[in-house]
Parts: sequence; structure tokens; C-alpha cells
Amino acid sequence: MRDIHSDPIGLHRVLDDAQRLPQAADRLDTRRELWPDEVRIRVERLNLDAASYRQLERKHGGAGQVDGPAIRAEVLEIVSTRGKMQNPETGSGGMLVGTVEEVGPDSPLGLEVGDRVATLVSLTLTPLVIEDGLARWDGLGEQVPCDGYAVLFGRSIAAVLPDDLPAELSLAVMDVCGAPALTARVVEQYADPVVAVIGGAGKSGSLSLAAARAAGAKHTIGVVPHEAEAALLREAGIADEVVIADARNPIGLRDAVTAAGGPADVTVVCVDVPGCEGGAILATADRGTVIFFSMATSFSAAALGAEGLAADVTMLVGTGYTPGHAAYSLELLRDSDGVRRLFERRLG
Amino acid sequence: MRDIHSDPIGLHRVLDDAQRLPQAADRLDTRRELWPDEVRIRVERLNLDAASYRQLERKHGGAGQVDGPAIRAEVLEIVSTRGKMQNPETGSGGMLVGTVEEVGPDSPLGLEVGDRVATLVSLTLTPLVIEDGLARWDGLGEQVPCDGYAVLFGRSIAAVLPDDLPAELSLAVMDVCGAPALTARVVEQYADPVVAVIGGAGKSGSLSLAAARAAGAKHTIGVVPHEAEAALLREAGIADEVVIADARNPIGLRDAVTAAGGPADVTVVCVDVPGCEGGAILATADRGTVIFFSMATSFSAAALGAEGLAADVTMLVGTGYTPGHAAYSLELLRDSDGVRRLFERRLG
Repeated sequence: MRDIHSDPIGLHRVLDDAQRLPQAADRLDTRRELWPDEVRIRVERLNLDAASYRQLERKHGGAGQVDGPAIRAEVLEIVSTRGKMQNPETGSGGMLVGTVEEVGPDSPLGLEVGDRVATLVSLTLTPLVIEDGLARWDGLGEQVPCDGYAVLFGRSIAAVLPDDLPAELSLAVMDVCGAPALTARVVEQYADPVVAVIGGAGKSGSLSLAAARAAGAKHTIGVVPHEAEAALLREAGIADEVVIADARNPIGLRDAVTAAGGPADVTVVCVDVPGCEGGAILATADRGTVIFFSMATSFSAAALGAEGLAADVTMLVGTGYTPGHAAYSLELLRDSDGVRRLFERRLG
Repeated sequence: MRDIHSDPIGLHRVLDDAQRLPQAADRLDTRRELWPDEVRIRVERLNLDAASYRQLERKHGGAGQVDGPAIRAEVLEIVSTRGKMQNPETGSGGMLVGTVEEVGPDSPLGLEVGDRVATLVSLTLTPLVIEDGLARWDGLGEQVPCDGYAVLFGRSIAAVLPDDLPAELSLAVMDVCGAPALTARVVEQYADPVVAVIGGAGKSGSLSLAAARAAGAKHTIGVVPHEAEAALLREAGIADEVVIADARNPIGLRDAVTAAGGPADVTVVCVDVPGCEGGAILATADRGTVIFFSMATSFSAAALGAEGLAADVTMLVGTGYTPGHAAYSLELLRDSDGVRRLFERRLG
């Protein structure tokens, strides 16, 4: 017998026979009526995950001769079959932008009808109904204009898009907002710490540098791979020292960070290349903390690396979520012209 | 020009042309003379890593018709060529037992000549010379009687084997001693926490349960996969509650831990099966901590899982090393008849 009470992580909308999390489910219940802790969003745009879109593009003609209508038809088919946008090949989804349409009386998310929001949980676990047949989308890009609705569970994440910033800029900040929020939390646990950010000129890296300074870092070190990025980061003025090092070379990274005022009490890894674990560990002081935000991080390389180096460092799996992370990161951007310039440059 | 000063992680003994960590190096300098911060060990036994020995066994005849002398010859060849025991196929090494022969004046390891020790850093980064041609080894097992010497760097880990415990028992404890030591450190950061240990009847799990209680846990929950292990763990008396759950089923694990007095403030994952990330996250309270000790942990599953579940939990990469971990774990075993029985049962 199906439990009719709602579950904060959405188990009540899983239609599979086996007990599964919404993300792992084959099919979700997309009924319009809300459980008391849910929120319904009127969707205006889907942002498909880049890996998912590339797979669809390859499948339907490849670059240069992409069959847009075929891609559109497949996205419609996926969403109507599964009740969510989750590419069966890549397993990935994306996020959406829309306006709050109805808020259940028990919703803990703090949203109000009319708020323009971005969802920061994946489309892979979000009940979704498309109502316009994606008529305004040519199938030729990850940005999908869309009319329809989506449902957020009790335990979910949506951030209100601020009025004072372009939506594209806000979305770019929200995409990486877990990194600066967790960085600030860790930095606050140390007295006058030295903080090194590997990949300091990138989106998550520049916000993490700003967060470290705001959270009380005594000295911040931005590590970048080459002179072009070093010039950008110096000009942004958000790191006390800027050094060039290959993060995959453990000894080189250690020596560069040490020469720039290290070792670091907190090292933040924001570069998506494999093999940075050893260098990050070696660049970190005894009883320091390494926060890994790169999805290229190898769990076993980190664990065995610290053991092999007899390093007494705390190593954190960087998550995309801490409460209030989106608002905090937008505030960092507003307060730092340097961070904002780096972001705007990337948006082109 | 080679730097003649010693480096605490052993860079001064790397003979490769490129700058590499000792573990990544092709060849180490095995000279007998010590740098001031080094220690030389007279080796009595090598314990080859299980994966490494199985590879050698497969290569030289397979089970049932293993060519022991050929395996012995290959181990001798590896050690004489590379200056360390690192299987070129598996990349793995093992550890060794021996007696301290000489201690450099600047060694920070606290060892004394005559101490019988086990090295807790891998053979893959330990300079090693075999002097008896492994004459006492038939090549038919991972335990290798050996006369020779090995060198420990300034930053290394070796634990003195206690007189009051059988060597096999001490070695089994030392093999997993990182888990209880880090568990204790995390548990101490909470006031009266609930602690759940996934895989509570295993070696690292039982020690972690004992560590949690010693460090001030208000309530401990041991999670095991089936009734046989539950009976063992109940009999050991080291958990306040024992529950049976499949750690790969997120909802089942959450519900089991909740029913046993959870959610947990600290969840310790000690089972070497993939797919336990979601359940561990869901079993953990808001602002709680998950410590992953399993090498089967997927970094991205942990990071994306916490984000998808909007879970504000700290996730730690469990390392094999915190200072004093071996002595601490041996003390836990001495103080807990239940833990000791579980270990002795596994040693057979």
C-alpha cells in the first residue's frame, strides 16, 4: 500500500515498484496537486546538463548537421515517460528557472508565490510536466524555453533570482555557490589562517578566495596554471599572492604554496583535473584542512596519499549545498568588483 | 645538482631524473648511511599486499601449481631494481616488521634502537635492501621471512609492537587503526552525539564503535548486513543497538538507523562495498558528519548525493593516519573484551 504522507526527499512521488530515491527512480508522479510540504513552479526555461545535451547531439546527427526536431522529440519523450528530465544514457539532468506558482502550507523552503527562482537540485529528481511541446525550442542548444510546471519537495533547494543582477550572472554564481559557502565555514574554524585556492581564477575558485578573505583569512594564495590566468587574478585583486604551478605536480605545488606564504591551513581544490590530491595534501599544514570541490577527485588517491605522506590533514568532500549558500555567494559577488569582473569575462 | 639535504617525505632518496614522490618513483637510493632525520630498520618479515601477491601467483602458474622459486626470484628482482617492493603491475607494496637498528639524531619518530616495530607506511615508498636472497621463503604466501634493512624518512609512520599482545593481533589492529582514531576525534567535537557505524562487526567497525563510546558518544548503533554478524556484535557488547540493514539501500539504511535511535550525528562507513554514500548521508542528522573509511567510496556519489538530498552534512575522507593512532587502537582493544573477541575470531 502506497504511503500517502509526503516524505521530505520525495519518496511519495516515486512510482517504481521497488523502493528508490527519486533520482534513481524510473518514473515520478507528476500530479499537479501538492502535498502540504511541496512547492509548484511555473517553468520558463530548462538548462540541460552539458554532458546530456552533447549525448543527444551526437545521437541525432553530430555537430554541423544536428537534427533539432529529433532532439526536441526525444526530450519530450523522456519527460513524459519518466516524469522528470533525466537522460537515460548520461544519467544527468540540469536545472530550471521559473516562477513560484503555489506553496504548500508546510513548505520549509521560504518561497512565496511570484518569486522568480532557479532550482539548485537536479532535474533528475524533480517532477516535471511540459505543456507547450517545447514549441519555442529549436533543439539546437542546452537552453530550453519551456512552459510547464515542476514540483519541489520539502527538502529541496531553490534560490530567488535577485533583481539587481542579470539572470545569467546570478545563475553562473549559483552554479558554484557550494564552494565559497563551505570554504567560509571551514576558514572560520581557524584563527588567522593561511588559505590557498587551487584554480583561484575560476568561478568557484574566485568566489572561494573572496569567501576566505571575508571569513577571516590572514593571507590568501591563488594558484593558477599559467601566466594569462595569473594576470587576470592579480588584476582582480582578490588574492594576497598569486602563484603559477601545475597542481598535478605534488612537489611543485607544495614548493609554490610554501614560497607564497604557505603551507596553507586551508587548501581549496577547485580545478577539474585528476591527480591534484597529493599536491593539495603536501601544500597543507599539519592539522590543516583540504576541501576537494573537483569532481575529478579520486577518493582512494586522497585517502592513500595522506597515509603515505603521514599527513595529519582533514580532507572534506566538497558538497554543493550548505544552507543559504546562493544568497551568500551573490553577496560576495556584489561586494567584490574583482570577482564580478572575472565572472563577466567568462560570460563573454 | 642533487640536493644533499634530506626532505621529510624522502625526496632526497628518489633517483629518477624527473622530480617525483618516493611512491611514484621508479628507483630509490638504498644507501645504508642515514640522513640525520632517518631511521634504519633490520627487517625480519615483509607482508606483501594481497593484490600484489595474487598477481605474482597468477603470473607464475596460478593456484595449485604455483612456481614458488619464480615468485621469489621476481620479488628479489623488483627490490634490487627499484630499491623498494612495489609490484609494477598492481602498483602496491605491503608493510614490514623489524627491529630498529639505527636512529638519526634528528629523527622525529620517537623510536629507539632495539624497538620491534611495524611500518605503517607502504613498502611502495620505503627504501629496502634484501640481504639473504629470501632463502627462508618458499614463495608460497604473502608472509615473507627476510633479512635485510629498510629506511624510514623523517615523516613516516612506524608503531612499536607491544609485548603483551600476540604480534598477529597487534598487526591486525594496526592495519585499521586510522578509523577509530579519526572517529574519536570527530565524536569529541559533538556534545553527547549519536554515532552509527556501518559494518560495526568488522575490524575497523568494531574499533570505531569502541572509540565512539570512549570519546563520549551518548548512543552507539552498529549496522550489520545479516543476523550472523548481528549475533556476534550483540555478544561483543560494544554497541547500544544492533540493527540489520543493507547499506546499499538508502531508504532502508535511513529507516533502520532512525528506528535504532538515529539519525546519527556521526556516521562511520566501514564496509567495503560500493553504493553506501546515499544511505550514509540520509542516516545522518543535519550538521552531522559522515566519515568514509571504505575504499569503495565514490567521491562524486558522495558529493552529488549530498547535494541532491539537500543534506547539510560534513563528509570526511577517512585517512589511515592520525598521530598516535596505533597506540590508541591497541589501548581500545586491551580495554574491550568484546573487540578483542571479534578480532581473535577473525584471526582464527
